[in-house]
Amino acid sequence: MNNKDMIQFVDGTFDSLYGHKVIDIKEKYIKTELTIKSDHHQPMGLVHGGVYSSMAEAAISYGANFSQEGVWVGVNNNTDFIKSSQQGKLVCEAEPIKMGKRSQLWEAKIYNGENICAISKVRLSNLNA
Amino acid sequence: MNNKDMIQFVDGTFDSLYGHKVIDIKEKYIKTELTIKSDHHQPMGLVHGGVYSSMAEAAISYGANFSQEGVWVGVNNNTDFIKSSQQGKLVCEAEPIKMGKRSQLWEAKIYNGENICAISKVRLSNLNA
Amino acid sequence: MNNKDMIQFVDGTFDSLYGHKVIDIKEKYIKTELTIKSDHHQPMGLVHGGVYSSMAEAAISYGANFSQEGVWVGVNNNTDFIKSSQQGKLVCEAEPIKMGKRSQLWEAKIYNGENICAISKVRLSNLNA
Amino acid sequence: MNNKDMIQFVDGTFDSLYGHKVIDIKEKYIKTELTIKSDHHQPMGLVHGGVYSSMAEAAISYGANFSQEGVWVGVNNNTDFIKSSQQGKLVCEAEPIKMGKRSQLWEAKIYNGENICAISKVRLSNLNA
Repeated sequence: MNNKDMIQFVDGTFDSLYGHKVIDIKEKYIKTELTIKSDHHQPMGLVHGGVYSSMAEAAISYGANFSQEGVWVGVNNNTDFIKSSQQGKLVCEAEPIKMGKRSQLWEAKIYNGENICAISKVRLSNLNA
Repeated sequence: MNNKDMIQFVDGTFDSLYGHKVIDIKEKYIKTELTIKSDHHQPMGLVHGGVYSSMAEAAISYGANFSQEGVWVGVNNNTDFIKSSQQGKLVCEAEPIKMGKRSQLWEAKIYNGENICAISKVRLSNLNA
Repeated sequence: MNNKDMIQFVDGTFDSLYGHKVIDIKEKYIKTELTIKSDHHQPMGLVHGGVYSSMAEAAISYGANFSQEGVWVGVNNNTDFIKSSQQGKLVCEAEPIKMGKRSQLWEAKIYNGENICAISKVRLSNLNA
Repeated sequence: MNNKDMIQFVDGTFDSLYGHKVIDIKEKYIKTELTIKSDHHQPMGLVHGGVYSSMAEAAISYGANFSQEGVWVGVNNNTDFIKSSQQGKLVCEAEPIKMGKRSQLWEAKIYNGENICAISKVRLSNLNA
């Protein structure tokens, strides 16, 4: 697999199950989005926290594998939920904080319009290091 | 909504989308499971990190709302990925570390057979406090 | 205690023990610094991780109590160590991510000259809520 | 430096500054303690959150370097503050969650008598990997 070919989430994987799309990817940057439907909700009608964690995890994993040689997998996902959402479109933008040989640390911010809904840090380890 | 009625993830919500089931729930304890299918994977054929974060988020949210009066929503989800999985059944068990009036902190451990795959801490805030 | 009077770390507290100083404080912003000495090191001669965590904890606690009514105490401190330091001056700048009635979430960045050494998120709870 | 020789925090380092002592260390286990004095406090007379983070960081770093070949440094310290302390003795016990070649993840629990005051996870990276 050439990292540079991963420009959309792969059909049949978890991201396609919940409707997560890559909008833009380049070195050290990825932007993704998701149109909120009722099956992203928890029972109170709010977007399930796992949706934000999943978006950040996927966006950052793709961004990290695109941006640097190696096979990068997440070892920690730390997501703060800032403001709840019920409907609309969630947009995730992620950039690296540190890109080492063995470890990368990225931050994702997830917005619904003007409002920031969640911030996530994901640390990745290089399986080839 | 009576908290004590929430003994299964609600149809049409995110947990039903990805096949997450409650096995046991009582005060200060919840056990859930998920049978791994290909649509839980990321492109390398491993379970997507967001699946673990989502299982922990849901299990702990249900456990916290079941165990204490209030309307509890997650404010932080911190998940460490310990060992990857490709197939089989994921079992999540969660228990509280602290149950305050304004804040609860729970820990979830997710196993695939004997192996621990992920550990997650979720902090919840009481919207009614 | 009037929150607005806390414009320097108090003599006889932990921050004075390890030489941590407030440089600037205003609503939603605090800047602190520390001149590295050998007693901030761990055995390899690098600044001890606990020094960064402590600086972030203190800066954010003062910033949060200064910026909003209430009695705010940290409930979680999550610090990523980006680049090690041996000598020089550490400068910490912190700003809020969210200021709710019951909970505040702030981020601190700690620099040594041009280099970012650590990033920390601290969540605080209002004891008076 | 032979890792097995590190059985006490080194004089002149940060741990000696704030009075942190190793009580017991063996493979995959370390126990440390600290007698609370007023210079461990923040202005409200409670133990400063940075003291708990520092204890966990140091205990786990020593434990990790003692337990496995390599040069291990902390890359993340995530500490939850459970119950505040004013006086007495803090006892920290730490054990590994995962010991990989490139990365170790440990958990520390800090007690004051019967009460748990803080729980901390520290992730370490092997500089020699």
